[in-house]
Amino acid sequence: MANYSMKNRGSRTIYEYLYECIREDILSGKLHAGEQLASKRTLARDLNISVTSVENAYAQLVLEGYIHGETGRGFFVNDLIEPVPVRESARPFKPNILRQPEATAPEHILDFKANRSSVKNFPFATWSRLMRNVLSERNAAILGTVPYNGLFELRSALSAYLYRHRGIEADPEQIIIGAGTEYLYSRLLQVLGFNTIIAMEDPGYKKFSEISASQGTVWDYIPMDDEGMRIDYLKNSSANVIHVSPSNHFPTGTVMPITRRLQLLQWAREKPERYIIEDDYDSELRYAGRVIPPMYAIDEDAKVIYMNTFSKSLVPSIRISYMILPPYLLERYQDTMSFYSCTVSAFEQLTLAHFISEGYFSRHINRMKQIYKQKRDLVLNALKESDLHQISEIREANAGTHFLLHVNTSLTDKQIKAKAEEQRIELALLSDYTTHQGIKSMGTLIINYAGLEPDQVGLAIEIIEQVFKDDIAKAKSKPTF
Amino acid sequence: MANYSMKNRGSRTIYEYLYECIREDILSGKLHAGEQLASKRTLARDLNISVTSVENAYAQLVLEGYIHGETGRGFFVNDLIEPVPVRESARPFKPNILRQPEATAPEHILDFKANRSSVKNFPFATWSRLMRNVLSERNAAILGTVPYNGLFELRSALSAYLYRHRGIEADPEQIIIGAGTEYLYSRLLQVLGFNTIIAMEDPGYKKFSEISASQGTVWDYIPMDDEGMRIDYLKNSSANVIHVSPSNHFPTGTVMPITRRLQLLQWAREKPERYIIEDDYDSELRYAGRVIPPMYAIDEDAKVIYMNTFSKSLVPSIRISYMILPPYLLERYQDTMSFYSCTVSAFEQLTLAHFISEGYFSRHINRMKQIYKQKRDLVLNALKESDLHQISEIREANAGTHFLLHVNTSLTDKQIKAKAEEQRIELALLSDYTTHQGIKSMGTLIINYAGLEPDQVGLAIEIIEQVFKDDIAKAKSKPTF
Repeated sequence: MANYSMKNRGSRTIYEYLYECIREDILSGKLHAGEQLASKRTLARDLNISVTSVENAYAQLVLEGYIHGETGRGFFVNDLIEPVPVRESARPFKPNILRQPEATAPEHILDFKANRSSVKNFPFATWSRLMRNVLSERNAAILGTVPYNGLFELRSALSAYLYRHRGIEADPEQIIIGAGTEYLYSRLLQVLGFNTIIAMEDPGYKKFSEISASQGTVWDYIPMDDEGMRIDYLKNSSANVIHVSPSNHFPTGTVMPITRRLQLLQWAREKPERYIIEDDYDSELRYAGRVIPPMYAIDEDAKVIYMNTFSKSLVPSIRISYMILPPYLLERYQDTMSFYSCTVSAFEQLTLAHFISEGYFSRHINRMKQIYKQKRDLVLNALKESDLHQISEIREANAGTHFLLHVNTSLTDKQIKAKAEEQRIELALLSDYTTHQGIKSMGTLIINYAGLEPDQVGLAIEIIEQVFKDDIAKAKSKPTF
Repeated sequence: MANYSMKNRGSRTIYEYLYECIREDILSGKLHAGEQLASKRTLARDLNISVTSVENAYAQLVLEGYIHGETGRGFFVNDLIEPVPVRESARPFKPNILRQPEATAPEHILDFKANRSSVKNFPFATWSRLMRNVLSERNAAILGTVPYNGLFELRSALSAYLYRHRGIEADPEQIIIGAGTEYLYSRLLQVLGFNTIIAMEDPGYKKFSEISASQGTVWDYIPMDDEGMRIDYLKNSSANVIHVSPSNHFPTGTVMPITRRLQLLQWAREKPERYIIEDDYDSELRYAGRVIPPMYAIDEDAKVIYMNTFSKSLVPSIRISYMILPPYLLERYQDTMSFYSCTVSAFEQLTLAHFISEGYFSRHINRMKQIYKQKRDLVLNALKESDLHQISEIREANAGTHFLLHVNTSLTDKQIKAKAEEQRIELALLSDYTTHQGIKSMGTLIINYAGLEPDQVGLAIEIIEQVFKDDIAKAKSKPTF
C-alpha cells in the first residue's frame, strides 16, 4: 500500500490528505476489514512525511471509526457493514426529481386576486431610520435572548396602542408575538387541544382551514347570512371554538352587527371550553363612519382571543403578528407552549416597538386609509361610467381593500375564470371562498384594488368588460322605456 | 331624551360623540328595545347641531346594528339580547389572575446550564454594515413577497457554503428556511404524518420530545452507548424516524463512528417510510482533528433530513434555521406545507445571505473555534490544577461548547444540585437529560463554558470544589502509596 502521491493533495494539509486517501481505500474496499495498516514510522518514511502527520491522520480515522488501534500491535481496518461512496463522489443531485421551479413573476397583466398592500406606500425612510437607531443604540437588546412571548418593549407599545385605538384593555403579559398569524394560529390550536372543533365562516379565509387540517384539528363550515355566522347552524354543529372576522369579514366585507356579536358571546359563555377567535385584520381600514370596536372590547367573560398582524398593514415581508390570550388560555399557553422560542428576531421587534410608540404606525394607517379610499373611489367611479354598470351591483365597498361586484351574467363562474385567463388577468370570485355554492355567491367578483395603480384602473375595467361583453350586448339590446 | 351635553365631547367629533352617547344609552338599557329615536331634525334642533352630524351618528349606529330605520317612520332601537358595559367601562384587567412576572435576570452568579454562545464575540460591526447596505440597496427585495421556503438568494448562498464546508450537495430548492429549528421541526413532523414514531436519543436534547408531544407525535427513547443510539433497541422499537446529532451529540458530545452511521443508514434503507433527522448543530466546533462529515453526505438513498441553525452559531436573537429535505419529502412538503408563509423576514434573510456569501460566516466560525478552544483549555487546566482533579474525570472535551465532568462522589445528583443552589450556581447534570438513570450518568456534570468569561473560571472551579468538598477531603485523607 502507501503509494499515495503527495502531489495531489492540493490545498489540504498533509495529514488531512493522508486521512482522505486511507478513508477512500477503506470505503472502496481496497483496504479490507481486519487488514493491518503500516506502522506510523514506516508510512512516514515511505511517504517522506513527518510521523506526526501520520499520527494525526490515524487519530482522525480512529475518531470517525474507520480503524482501531491494538496496543503493541498497531492499527487495523474496522469492519464496516458495506462500502459506500466517499464524500467527494457522493450521489450527484437529481434536479429532475423536483417539481416547481423557483418562484417566477406571474404572467398576468393584472391581478385582482392578490390582496396585497401597495408596497410603495410603506414608510421605508422612517422604518430604516428607526432600524439604524436600533442598530447603533440597542446593541445589547438586539443580542440578548427574547422571552417566548416577545420583547416586553414591543408588547407594551402594542398594549398602549390597542387601548388608545381599539378600546382594548390588554396587559403586555397577555400578548404573544409571533412570526405571522399562521404561526400563532398553529400554536393556539395546540393550546386549545386536540378535541377542539373550529367553526369556520363559509365563505371565509381558507388558510385557517388548511392550517387546521395540517394540524389535525377538526372544523365545521358554518354558513353566513348578511349579519355573519348563522347562530342556528352554529348551535347544531359540535364546534366549541369560533373563528370570525367581525369587523371586516373576508371576503364579503360584512360588518357583524352588535346583535350577532352578543349572540356569539352568549354562545361562548354557555360552556367553559368555548372560545371565539377574533381576527381583526384590516379592521382600521374603514372609509365610512367610525372604526368598528372589536368583540374583545365588549367581552366580559374572557372568551375572546384577539388576533392581528402587521404583515398586511405594513408590508408582507415583515413577519410580525400578535394574539391576545384571555387569562385562562394564557396560563395554559405558559404551561405548555412557553418552551417554544419566540420566532421574531429581537431586532425587528425593537424597530416595530419604536415605530408604534413614536406614533408612526397610526400615522401610516391613516395615510393608507386615504390612499386606499382614493383607489376605491377611482375604481367605483370608473365602474359607474362603464358598460358594466347596468349589469352589475357593488357590495361592501366601505372597508378593507376590496369590494364585491355582483354581475348579472349568463356565464358560470368557471366560464368567467376561463375568459379572464384569456385576457391574462387573475380574477377572484366569491365562490372560490365558499363550500356551499349558494346563488348569492355566483357571478360575484372580488375586486382587490390595494395593489392596483391609478393608471391601471381604465385598463382593468376594459378587460372586465371584455369578459362580460355578451351580457353587456344583451343588456344594451333590451328596449329601455 | 336628547339631553346630551355637547360640552363633554372632548376631542371627539360631534357625530362621534352623539353616536357614543346614544350607544351608551342603548347598552345600559336607558333606551329600550323598540323605542323610537327622535327624528334627525328634532334632535339636531334640540342639541343645536347640524342634521348631518345626527345623520352620521344614526348611520354608524345602524351599521353596527344598534338601531334600524323604518322608511317613513324613523329610527328604532334594536333588541339586543342583553345590555353589556360599553367600551369605555369595559372590564378592568385583572393582573392577579396572571402568574409569571416579566423575565427577570437570573440570581445565579454562574450558569453552567445555559448553553449560550458568548454574545460579545458576534461580529456586530460587520453585521450592521451589511444590514445598512441591504437597507439602502435592496429596497425592492426587502418589501417583496418571500417564497414559502425562503429567499433564493439565501438558499443558494447556503447551498454553496454547505458544499464547500460540509461536503453536502443540496440544491437551493431542497433548502427550507424557517424561524428556528423548533419551527422547522414542527413543520417536518406534520409532513412526516401522524403515524410517525420518532426514535429519540436517551440521553438527548429534550426540546424535540417536548415539541413532538405538543404536536401529538409519538416517540421512543432509545438508549445510547459510547457509539451513539443502540441499534438493538432501535430495531425492537416501532419507530420509523430517527432523530440524531451524530457529529456532536448533546449532551454527551459523543461522535458517532462511521460503523454506527452506516448501520443507521441501512436501518433506514429497509423501509420506505423510514428517515433520519440529522441535527448538525455545532458540528463545526471541533478542536482536535478535522470536522466530521455529516451523514447527509454519505447517504445514497435520500433518507437523511439535514437540520442546522444560525441562532447558535451567530446569536440567539437571530432566529434563522434551515433544513434540507430529500426529494420525496420535499415534494410532500411542497404539496402540503407550502401554503405556510416563510417565517423569517426578507430583511434578515438578505443580510445573512451576504454574511455567508462574502465569507464572513466561515471566518466567524473559525474565530469562535479559537475563542471556545481557549476557554475550554482555561477551564481544563484550572480543573487539572484543582483538588477536583483527583476525584473526577473529563470526557468528550474535543467538540462543541461543553464537556462532561464525571465526579466520584458520595452525593446523589439531587444533593449535588441542592449544594450548587446553596452556592448560587446553576449546574447541569447528565441525568437531567436521560430517562433511564444509568450508573454512567450519575455524578456527571455538564460544563458549558461558552458563556463563561476568563476571569470567572477560577471562581467557577472554587465553587464546584465547595460542592464536593467532603469527597475531596475523603480522597485527601486516603494514604497514597
